[in-house]
Amino acid sequence: MTETFAPAVDSAVDPSYDPRTGAQHGSVSHTAPEQVAEILRRAQGAASQLADTSPATRQGWLTTIAESLRTHEDELVQLAGEETGLGADRLRGELAKCATSTDFYGAVAAEGSYLGASTEVIGGDSTLSRWNIPLGPVAVFGASNFPFGFGVIGHDVASALGAGCPVIVKAHPAHPRLSMRLAELVSNALNRAGAPAGSYALVVGFDAGLQLVDASEVTAVAFTGSQGGGMALVQRAAARGVPVFAEMGTVNPVFVTTDAAADTAGIAAGFVGSFTLGAGQFCTKPGLLFAPAGAGIFEEVLARLSQAPRAPLLTAGIACGYRAGVAQLIEAADVAGNVTPTVVTGETPTDPADGYVAAPQAVLVRLEDLHPGSRLLGECFGPVALVCEYEDTGAALDALTRLQPSLVASVFTSGPGDPESAEVVRRLLGQVGRVALNAWPTGVATSWSMQHGGPWPATSRSDATSVGAGALGRFVRPVAVQNAEPAHLSDALHPDNPWRVPRRIDGRLTLPTL
Amino acid sequence: MTETFAPAVDSAVDPSYDPRTGAQHGSVSHTAPEQVAEILRRAQGAASQLADTSPATRQGWLTTIAESLRTHEDELVQLAGEETGLGADRLRGELAKCATSTDFYGAVAAEGSYLGASTEVIGGDSTLSRWNIPLGPVAVFGASNFPFGFGVIGHDVASALGAGCPVIVKAHPAHPRLSMRLAELVSNALNRAGAPAGSYALVVGFDAGLQLVDASEVTAVAFTGSQGGGMALVQRAAARGVPVFAEMGTVNPVFVTTDAAADTAGIAAGFVGSFTLGAGQFCTKPGLLFAPAGAGIFEEVLARLSQAPRAPLLTAGIACGYRAGVAQLIEAADVAGNVTPTVVTGETPTDPADGYVAAPQAVLVRLEDLHPGSRLLGECFGPVALVCEYEDTGAALDALTRLQPSLVASVFTSGPGDPESAEVVRRLLGQVGRVALNAWPTGVATSWSMQHGGPWPATSRSDATSVGAGALGRFVRPVAVQNAEPAHLSDALHPDNPWRVPRRIDGRLTLPTL
Repeated sequence: MTETFAPAVDSAVDPSYDPRTGAQHGSVSHTAPEQVAEILRRAQGAASQLADTSPATRQGWLTTIAESLRTHEDELVQLAGEETGLGADRLRGELAKCATSTDFYGAVAAEGSYLGASTEVIGGDSTLSRWNIPLGPVAVFGASNFPFGFGVIGHDVASALGAGCPVIVKAHPAHPRLSMRLAELVSNALNRAGAPAGSYALVVGFDAGLQLVDASEVTAVAFTGSQGGGMALVQRAAARGVPVFAEMGTVNPVFVTTDAAADTAGIAAGFVGSFTLGAGQFCTKPGLLFAPAGAGIFEEVLARLSQAPRAPLLTAGIACGYRAGVAQLIEAADVAGNVTPTVVTGETPTDPADGYVAAPQAVLVRLEDLHPGSRLLGECFGPVALVCEYEDTGAALDALTRLQPSLVASVFTSGPGDPESAEVVRRLLGQVGRVALNAWPTGVATSWSMQHGGPWPATSRSDATSVGAGALGRFVRPVAVQNAEPAHLSDALHPDNPWRVPRRIDGRLTLPTL
Repeated sequence: MTETFAPAVDSAVDPSYDPRTGAQHGSVSHTAPEQVAEILRRAQGAASQLADTSPATRQGWLTTIAESLRTHEDELVQLAGEETGLGADRLRGELAKCATSTDFYGAVAAEGSYLGASTEVIGGDSTLSRWNIPLGPVAVFGASNFPFGFGVIGHDVASALGAGCPVIVKAHPAHPRLSMRLAELVSNALNRAGAPAGSYALVVGFDAGLQLVDASEVTAVAFTGSQGGGMALVQRAAARGVPVFAEMGTVNPVFVTTDAAADTAGIAAGFVGSFTLGAGQFCTKPGLLFAPAGAGIFEEVLARLSQAPRAPLLTAGIACGYRAGVAQLIEAADVAGNVTPTVVTGETPTDPADGYVAAPQAVLVRLEDLHPGSRLLGECFGPVALVCEYEDTGAALDALTRLQPSLVASVFTSGPGDPESAEVVRRLLGQVGRVALNAWPTGVATSWSMQHGGPWPATSRSDATSVGAGALGRFVRPVAVQNAEPAHLSDALHPDNPWRVPRRIDGRLTLPTL
């Protein structure tokens, strides 16, 4: 079956396919090694210039990028639709959020807490001052599933620029033409806003990506995608000590308490809506729902699933992987002596002329089959989810904490009086980066308090987040200067606080005067 | 020569040697695998209890430990002297600093910024709250050279406890009897202060250490020691995504500007004092001094070195390594066609009956021989340093930035008017974690603004520090809860702020009312 979808491989280009039809529309050439080398040189040349800019200056660059995205909304949504099949509504929403996020990272930079500025007398007339400096050029490996959110633009790019790092993006092969156009818009915006040449560049092709990871100029890597891809980058970069912030994703659980299960219809509807959103291609997709036995949630899920829309997956490879993954889940559930899993809306088509349309699926699994290493627990990218009906809350929680850690979990409760909710949240916080109460996990707010990153192997660095204010912290490191003169210090520590940032003076946190 | 110093290996014990005489005085048994397993189980059991304590409670535990250290000062200094030969003054000073630091980490915990508490409305009636939780049991691998500063007690232990993590220490084989006694004092102090059983334990032996690194209960590793040891731990723990904070150390440079070289005698005296301090067994030892040609600094160094005291190294292995390392440096300098390096105070003795006494050494090297990969640039642990006399400041700075990054650098200037200082500091900040102006690098203050950690491979994580307020940040990770009820939140985010910590409310940083 694999061959059906396998495009002819031309090692010099990324072909552009329409997932809705399987048809190819043009292609984009790979970046040659010598071009990548030149891009790296220019990024390194820009690094010290970026490090010398004020956060407010970089906020201006990000604002200009956000404006450009809004100006070109129709064109970008059209182009993204042709290469992702995600639909205009979703893409319009994602682009709007991306523009808002880009502005947000500028505001976070300007607020200045990320600088960690601190100065003190350490005895006699000795002083010690500490602040965060940008690492230098950052390589960003974008995701297939968020053409605007994680890639050529989006969280990684905006937070790295906000932190003062030049960015080189490796285009995802799922949307090469969109990547080229977005990179052009970003480059033009940065030029207009006065950013140094070399602040931003795009490379295309697998080999170009490897060249970035191996390049001495690259000081950090941000990646969003599969566990296989992320782990490969982590290992490759480890040899020279370069941090890789890989947001990989595993199976995100949902826990429905005994009392919450009364709303069977509401939960089933919400679950189906969440795990089929964007054809199930979210790293925050709820992949495994625990519900009390007897509440009839699986039946209700099946009933709703048969009405769920069928949407194309992003690429032929993802469609192949989805078919194989669903077959494996069904086989694993069968082998485990389970009830026969229900395949709801028929087979995912195998003829590429139909595009990469996927049928949503749900599989009922038994609690005792959810053990580490079970094939039921590998992430299957696409609109499929498991349901586990539990008899005993304690046993269900024990099973839950044996799963691989994940980015996020949802908990549904009957409200503040629910006797189970505190213990469920407590147990889940040991397993995940975020717990959403009475909310589905697929919504990720770009805000000061967001944590988008869970324990390994959901991400490579559980202390990092790829969304929210904390995202800038990935791309800086602290330095200290003892007995500094003003010329040696960041402006964040100049006596008159020209950047108006929070600072720690002699051990006491101080806020800028307004 | 190696055999001369190699003790008879008994795989079941760590023998205790007196470096001043080479004589063995007793030994300490290795911890058996089943004992290590039980220690791990108890640590994991304690983890959630520690996570539920307030920072002020843990501050009380740390204060009790510090008091115990002060109470037992004479006994501990005596015992440490027998196993390290570091001398009573140094050990008394190190123990006093350790007690002060232990108190400091308690104060940092209580201040509460490390919790990163933040809460906000994210649209409609949805809220999002984020704070840092302790990782869980931390394994600490202590250093040979700081029996009080980095090991059974000291920066790693106190910052991990302060952050709310149980600690299991692997004793360094250089001081097994001291380790046992210190661990007993710490355990007793924690018991008295009411800390949960399992909050702290010591294991002895190489295999016990490996068992910790591989244990599913261990969530982070802190290591201070050689590059070889640190890298081995980093690789071993990478397979299961456990962070290893390895503070390894490389060659720390000192740069003397053209104008500063006028004080030839002062710089030479300070340099010799700094690189022979503690028999040169500091990760912050200045290993390579750049001075303007013609100032006569190397001659002055030689003159002072001949008067420098000869002190024993910590272990037979270190003494062997030092002799081999010095021979290698001299050979490398010779092969490079340099002036004949000067060996100042005669050979380090090879008879273990003389103890592990080392002769301080200084080697003159040429700028052009300081290239990456040169054998001149490996760290040689002990009282040896290189001097490079430069003709051209720019060329010297270029050479400097081709070195391996390091923990710290010192810069000597003629004062605020020195035209070279800003550029020298700027270049160095790309290479190190800390720059000390007109101060030697060996002094490391435990304070809010300290950064003790440089770019890879000086440390495994350039964003981390093993000394100072930032040290707690290694042992926590952020979590977010959406739509949390009070029962789901850390007390750091309760409306009445019972812990009186800084918090970000709706995006705005707020300080506790006094």
